[in-house]
Amino acid sequence: MDSVQVYLNQLISKIAEGNFLALARALTLVENDIAPASDLLKSLSINRAVPVVGITGPPGAGKSTLVNAITDELCGLNKRIAILAVDPSSPFNYGSLLGDRIRMAKHFNHPNVYIRSVATRGSLGGVSAKTIEMVDVLRSSNFDLIIIETVGVGQSEIEIAGLADKTILVLVPEAGDEIQHIKSGLMEVAQAFVVNKADREGADGFANNLQKMVREQQQQIPVFKTVADKNVGISSLCDWILNEGPSDRTKIEYFLAEQAFRLIQNKRMKDIDKNKILTLIKEELASKHFNMYQFVERML
Amino acid sequence: MDSVQVYLNQLISKIAEGNFLALARALTLVENDIAPASDLLKSLSINRAVPVVGITGPPGAGKSTLVNAITDELCGLNKRIAILAVDPSSPFNYGSLLGDRIRMAKHFNHPNVYIRSVATRGSLGGVSAKTIEMVDVLRSSNFDLIIIETVGVGQSEIEIAGLADKTILVLVPEAGDEIQHIKSGLMEVAQAFVVNKADREGADGFANNLQKMVREQQQQIPVFKTVADKNVGISSLCDWILNEGPSDRTKIEYFLAEQAFRLIQNKRMKDIDKNKILTLIKEELASKHFNMYQFVERML
Repeated sequence: MDSVQVYLNQLISKIAEGNFLALARALTLVENDIAPASDLLKSLSINRAVPVVGITGPPGAGKSTLVNAITDELCGLNKRIAILAVDPSSPFNYGSLLGDRIRMAKHFNHPNVYIRSVATRGSLGGVSAKTIEMVDVLRSSNFDLIIIETVGVGQSEIEIAGLADKTILVLVPEAGDEIQHIKSGLMEVAQAFVVNKADREGADGFANNLQKMVREQQQQIPVFKTVADKNVGISSLCDWILNEGPSDRTKIEYFLAEQAFRLIQNKRMKDIDKNKILTLIKEELASKHFNMYQFVERML
Repeated sequence: MDSVQVYLNQLISKIAEGNFLALARALTLVENDIAPASDLLKSLSINRAVPVVGITGPPGAGKSTLVNAITDELCGLNKRIAILAVDPSSPFNYGSLLGDRIRMAKHFNHPNVYIRSVATRGSLGGVSAKTIEMVDVLRSSNFDLIIIETVGVGQSEIEIAGLADKTILVLVPEAGDEIQHIKSGLMEVAQAFVVNKADREGADGFANNLQKMVREQQQQIPVFKTVADKNVGISSLCDWILNEGPSDRTKIEYFLAEQAFRLIQNKRMKDIDKNKILTLIKEELASKHFNMYQFVERML
């Protein structure tokens, strides 16, 4: 066995024991695609039984506060929790969009809580391959629960829905106006709705409408009302997170097949030089009527 | 010339003249990837000088109402406008997430306004390739402006930022709480901020904070205050849309290079059977510790 593999095996067994330093090192290797990352991933013992909960919703819904409250509650139950905060970032300068997650600082020193931010940089495609790989690293440690927090109602939560076993969509009472146009699609994405800031006007009406919508579609999606910053409604939400039935196997299969397809794609495209394409396009754009489809034909 | 190409040439010249029926037919070919779609795209005279404005923001920000108000205003100026409403949809059943856009119905019969919805179905990756192709079809007609409306603050508006020449991020005063954590990243994504529902409490403070943020980053991003449903602030926003300086050429090059890369990718991957991958994964998942990275290695 070569020395790299010896190192990786040591790292992997430390991760399995719950060593945060080893975990952080492995995540950094994977996040930045540093040399042994691919061997590391192939050597992992990925425990697919660790529940992964996605928490998503539009800006201002109070997702971070909710994640904090959930973490508090679960720490009280002696659970080991990993939180992966996914920050969308610009493809233009690779900067992080959401910056510091100040409100999360509270748990940074808790021995049972591991928190990591990941910027989905450069990926014109929602949850990046990196995030998926990082969740696989987390799955190979000894957590009782992995939480993925991400902002957005659009494509990103659909992708989270694939990555997570169950997805919680966090909304505020004010969302009611637009949500009434959102029908069955949301129910495939979310396994639970949370109406946060439920002490605000219109919360009951909105929650009732969501429940009515769920019934009309003959679904079994719970609607929780929470006031995360006052710890209201958190214990029943946590109860659902810990004790809800098995995940949708079909969804997991679909997701993994997509992931396999993408990985194969990446390997097959390794020889294509993106910078060369960019250079050629810069030249072609001199023509006001540049036709991309003709260009691709010529490239092939 | 074969009969298909004759048909395509007729279609293309009708589109160039602004025939909505021909346009709708071409968009349907492209959206559903019906046989002559690829020849159609290669034959288009794509006018890259037509301005494309992306309008994005979280649910409840009032994007549709704003698009309506902008359209009203520009119709008054005798402009020809195409609106592409991008609805994220579930990858699981290909259903449309946002359903009917009732509030848009108002302009459906205006002779200078063409409205089309597109569901980004099946694409685990934000704005789909289809959307980009449909914009290319719209660019080959005689519109003065193309508006792309999409929901989401997350990945999707980053992709819109690539597709559009300029992107308007619509926010409501209540977003202030979360937006204060969002820093320079947003400024690369949006070329203008709109604080809609600006008759609500906190609007001035929020708009001022945005302006302060812009100044601190030494950017030139205007902050508009609108009350779209009362037509307040619309004319100055439209003035900016019509008369704002040239687009960021670097961004367009980057975007087109990404698109070329994806198109090449798709052509190269045509021989890979996704269903076969799915079938294999179903078998592999019998193992609780299924390792995707080993699986992909075996597949290659």
